[in-house]
Amino acid sequence: MRISQLSAASGVPIPTIKYYLREGLLPQGEQTAATRAEYGEGHLRRLRLIRALLEVGRLPVAAISQIIEAVEDDALPVHQMLGTAHYALASPVEVQPDDEAHQAARERVDTLIAELGWHIHPEAPTRDELAQILVRMDQLGMPATDGELRHHAGVILRLVAEREMTKIPFDGPRETAVESLVVGTVLYGKAFDVLRRLAHESESARLLAPEG
Amino acid sequence: MRISQLSAASGVPIPTIKYYLREGLLPQGEQTAATRAEYGEGHLRRLRLIRALLEVGRLPVAAISQIIEAVEDDALPVHQMLGTAHYALASPVEVQPDDEAHQAARERVDTLIAELGWHIHPEAPTRDELAQILVRMDQLGMPATDGELRHHAGVILRLVAEREMTKIPFDGPRETAVESLVVGTVLYGKAFDVLRRLAHESESARLLAPEG
Repeated sequence: MRISQLSAASGVPIPTIKYYLREGLLPQGEQTAATRAEYGEGHLRRLRLIRALLEVGRLPVAAISQIIEAVEDDALPVHQMLGTAHYALASPVEVQPDDEAHQAARERVDTLIAELGWHIHPEAPTRDELAQILVRMDQLGMPATDGELRHHAGVILRLVAEREMTKIPFDGPRETAVESLVVGTVLYGKAFDVLRRLAHESESARLLAPEG
Repeated sequence: MRISQLSAASGVPIPTIKYYLREGLLPQGEQTAATRAEYGEGHLRRLRLIRALLEVGRLPVAAISQIIEAVEDDALPVHQMLGTAHYALASPVEVQPDDEAHQAARERVDTLIAELGWHIHPEAPTRDELAQILVRMDQLGMPATDGELRHHAGVILRLVAEREMTKIPFDGPRETAVESLVVGTVLYGKAFDVLRRLAHESESARLLAPEG
């Protein structure tokens, strides 16, 4: 299809498509004449991925760009490619080297991961992300105990392993696996968050306004 | 304490504290002389709340402002006050009136909430937020079935009701209840999200790189 048809099919304006082409988020179309390129189903699917990451995932373009680079780099082993995608989804945490509260929380996180027997890269930015949240919980007088963390981690691992990972086509093309993983992580993460807020509203209503 | 001491104790620079005072996020100190005001523990706690909502929750100042207004409005019944706080945490979703996919997803959400027997306001923005995510999942070929949604909702309600709501001091001062609810919602939500990404990484590693 031509760029105008790609725009109509995806709902993405032509100037935005051209921006994605320039940034390398979207692969170039097949040049069929000096001023004409053909686009296919792959372009349509990629556009949907980009919009979902932007609009639902609220990821910055730089993070999307990292994810797409990993998808396209055939030399990267699948596990590392998925790691790149995972780490692009982490919120960068700035840690001061003399921040003792953070160092203590980070040790708690490392111990928790070791006790759970989870396979997490020693340099995974997610470790510091979780440590930062634990520090905030302490500061705000709502500390999470190790027992609570282990309980939450167990429940979440079961949901992820039994309900989410089973949807990822690991035996298909690598692009499909990463797309499913990233989209699944972002969308299921959002769905979780919304369901949690709904459960909070419902429980507050039940406790405080039983007539409602 | 003076503003300089408040700054030292909170780690928030004086110009930022003055900005929060101008925006009404932080209540004015007690004026003890023409150019001198006294601040107390309440200011310190409020500053920590603002920083947590900004840095951990990544909420825009407008949302923080809405939450703090609800905290400070003693005339607002507790349940409505908590509702305001909840809705400030929702990501606004723009719905086109002729968007049939969205309307169908919204009906699924309304049916799900009714079947679960959850107490959710009919105008809660969270309903459209969840509907938008369902539409994206369909578009990207990773649809969530009603059975999966009900299963996730049940697991999440148990965690929220048994582990999170029990920490909120509903019988204490109203400010404390909202602070706990908002901070708990944001921080537990973030902790959930990070634990989910860790579980994803661990499961991918286990499935794809068993030697790791």
